[in-house]
Amino acid sequence: MRPRVVIIGGGFGGVETFHRLHRLMHKRRGIDVTLIDQKNYFLFTPMLHELATGSIGRNHVTQPLREMIDCCHERFVRATAERIDLKRRVVVTDAGNYPYDYCVIAVGSRASDFGVPGVMEHALPLKTVNDCAAVRNHLVACFEAAARARSKTEREQRVHFVIVGGGATGVELAGQMGDLFRKEMRALYTAIPSDEVRITIVESGERVLQRHSEFVGTSAMRKLKELGVSIIVNTRVVKVEKNRVHLKNGDHIDACTIIWTSGVQSNADALLPHEDLDERGRVRVNEYLRMVDDEHVFALGDCAVIADTGMGVVPQTAQAAVAEAKGVAKNVRRLVRKKELVPYRHRVRGELVPIGNWFGIAELGPIRFTGRVAWLMRRGVFLLTMYSWPDRFRIALDWFLNTFSFRDTSEL
Amino acid sequence: MRPRVVIIGGGFGGVETFHRLHRLMHKRRGIDVTLIDQKNYFLFTPMLHELATGSIGRNHVTQPLREMIDCCHERFVRATAERIDLKRRVVVTDAGNYPYDYCVIAVGSRASDFGVPGVMEHALPLKTVNDCAAVRNHLVACFEAAARARSKTEREQRVHFVIVGGGATGVELAGQMGDLFRKEMRALYTAIPSDEVRITIVESGERVLQRHSEFVGTSAMRKLKELGVSIIVNTRVVKVEKNRVHLKNGDHIDACTIIWTSGVQSNADALLPHEDLDERGRVRVNEYLRMVDDEHVFALGDCAVIADTGMGVVPQTAQAAVAEAKGVAKNVRRLVRKKELVPYRHRVRGELVPIGNWFGIAELGPIRFTGRVAWLMRRGVFLLTMYSWPDRFRIALDWFLNTFSFRDTSEL
Repeated sequence: MRPRVVIIGGGFGGVETFHRLHRLMHKRRGIDVTLIDQKNYFLFTPMLHELATGSIGRNHVTQPLREMIDCCHERFVRATAERIDLKRRVVVTDAGNYPYDYCVIAVGSRASDFGVPGVMEHALPLKTVNDCAAVRNHLVACFEAAARARSKTEREQRVHFVIVGGGATGVELAGQMGDLFRKEMRALYTAIPSDEVRITIVESGERVLQRHSEFVGTSAMRKLKELGVSIIVNTRVVKVEKNRVHLKNGDHIDACTIIWTSGVQSNADALLPHEDLDERGRVRVNEYLRMVDDEHVFALGDCAVIADTGMGVVPQTAQAAVAEAKGVAKNVRRLVRKKELVPYRHRVRGELVPIGNWFGIAELGPIRFTGRVAWLMRRGVFLLTMYSWPDRFRIALDWFLNTFSFRDTSEL
Repeated sequence: MRPRVVIIGGGFGGVETFHRLHRLMHKRRGIDVTLIDQKNYFLFTPMLHELATGSIGRNHVTQPLREMIDCCHERFVRATAERIDLKRRVVVTDAGNYPYDYCVIAVGSRASDFGVPGVMEHALPLKTVNDCAAVRNHLVACFEAAARARSKTEREQRVHFVIVGGGATGVELAGQMGDLFRKEMRALYTAIPSDEVRITIVESGERVLQRHSEFVGTSAMRKLKELGVSIIVNTRVVKVEKNRVHLKNGDHIDACTIIWTSGVQSNADALLPHEDLDERGRVRVNEYLRMVDDEHVFALGDCAVIADTGMGVVPQTAQAAVAEAKGVAKNVRRLVRKKELVPYRHRVRGELVPIGNWFGIAELGPIRFTGRVAWLMRRGVFLLTMYSWPDRFRIALDWFLNTFSFRDTSEL
């Protein structure tokens, strides 16, 4: 019988693994691959902040998985994985059981409050399409309320936007919001003086974008200040209430909008027993990206952590997930052919951080620059993840045309 | 003091009324106009079936009202009208009271079950953007379930789609679904034999599109049959259960999807006391489109009914709402200038019915034809309702590019 590979999760890691194993499906001594996801589309998560702020449409960040997975449309199953039975080697889902010889866990992560009280009730995360809709609708509601407000104090509170977390998501969202407020909102809400609209980032470290180099961090800080974004560093949020954020240094900030981009929890915690996971629910894998205690299970991306290799921390990014997927696919192929496994080595291929429209920061090895070219490169990288060339062309032209009109400020 | 006009509802009628009164706002002896809507966008309702079936994107059918209402962005208020106080002449909303000298009710309609049991629980309406999302997600879920089904019987039930109501919405939706199933779904779900996928329209009258001429009706029937749509006429639905529709003639149809497009209820029923409304909640207006019992209130579109003029029934269409809006705006202008009112005369300017992609039926006075040109004309009419020329150009090009790729089958 052909070895069966079951991939759980149709994000960057899962889809890349599928693509890399696809050719082997059509070989005579090949394998059978199944891709399971609870939604029927792939989501380009690094662009969610642009959907929330209306500079791209929903159909630009989602793509049907059945279309994406090459010719083998029927290898996709829309189902929610409930747990993995390691002994019987079966993935249990709400649409039946899927036995495997090799299982690849690529289920990604969700927003986590790290135990800070009030986050789930009063702050908005930004991890799914529905989160984007909630953020967009909230922005609109705040501006509408501010336009009706009777006092300056009330108005200022309505249009004060706090972003907790100065990582890539927080910084990129702040940049887009800055752009949106200075152009569209200023034009459409003339009753609100634009100096009353404020964005504040709260970051626990010494600067934003701690995972990135000094150059990227300071360039981002400079650009954000230009856009009127305040940055509070070296303090953590200890409590969130309705319209108020409490900081560790004793201060508090009054704002109607609190967006939480600070940290994530792995989705693997629902699938496996706790002893196989770390404290954030990530699967412990060895240097071959294989589970420490089970030879038939691989894990990658946001839901995996490489234990004890002294390689340093692999960042939880789409780029890393894709690189790990290549490693996993290679090792699955080698297992099928009974060859020795090769260890995964993480290599940063470069960083591209967009801030607002038409400004980006690029760091590609020794080459560093900021400006329009870096921003365009980021968009170009996005297009390359598209399924087909007609799609790439269509979306590129769409973006080009969008630059001639206002962002979409409709509620979602 | 300048007369205050409050328009409730930012649909076809409300927006057209605003545009027609806009110039008068900038005159010295002019008026103040306020537009109130509970959502911040205009919705192109006649295209909802295309959003549900993925041939256009969400950003094509919604436009922010603040952008649309010309230069006077601040005249828009996002609020839910709760009632109209006819004595004090105040529109009461959840965001404060808006006093008026003239009030225009243009709140449209919602789906109505006409007292048929089970409709609200087991059938899907198609009146809002969220309805479209529900229909799209349901279609995807049905095909996914059918692809996993173990028996032919189970599979056939999963992919049987019943549309109740053979009016424009039902017929146009059936056409789009026929197209979607024959192209995208056939390619993506190869495990489902395409002859098992069925669409059935249930219509109580003798033929579909009863409001339209014989020519339009028979052309539509012919095209629908070509697309494999079954049409059951001369019988009504008397009960809807989960996965089953009961007909008046004693038959029943088993289908996982039941879409309800049969009839609407006016949204004015929440705003005014029952004695001013007819049995479907529509405001009774005279030939000047003014409320029979109140000289300061006008009503138009789906939420109005012209009483006792012997003019015959004005259809509940976007076209009629726009025509009535012109009449209302003219009469408001005449009232302000203390001139005599002019009665509204309904004139059908032509009918364009699209069925699937690239096929339409046109009846423009004596000129009748079917085919691609009619379909393109319908799209052209849509574009003319857009706010600005750059938008029109952008969306037209978008549609052109869409024709080269699959419809969007992502869940919404």
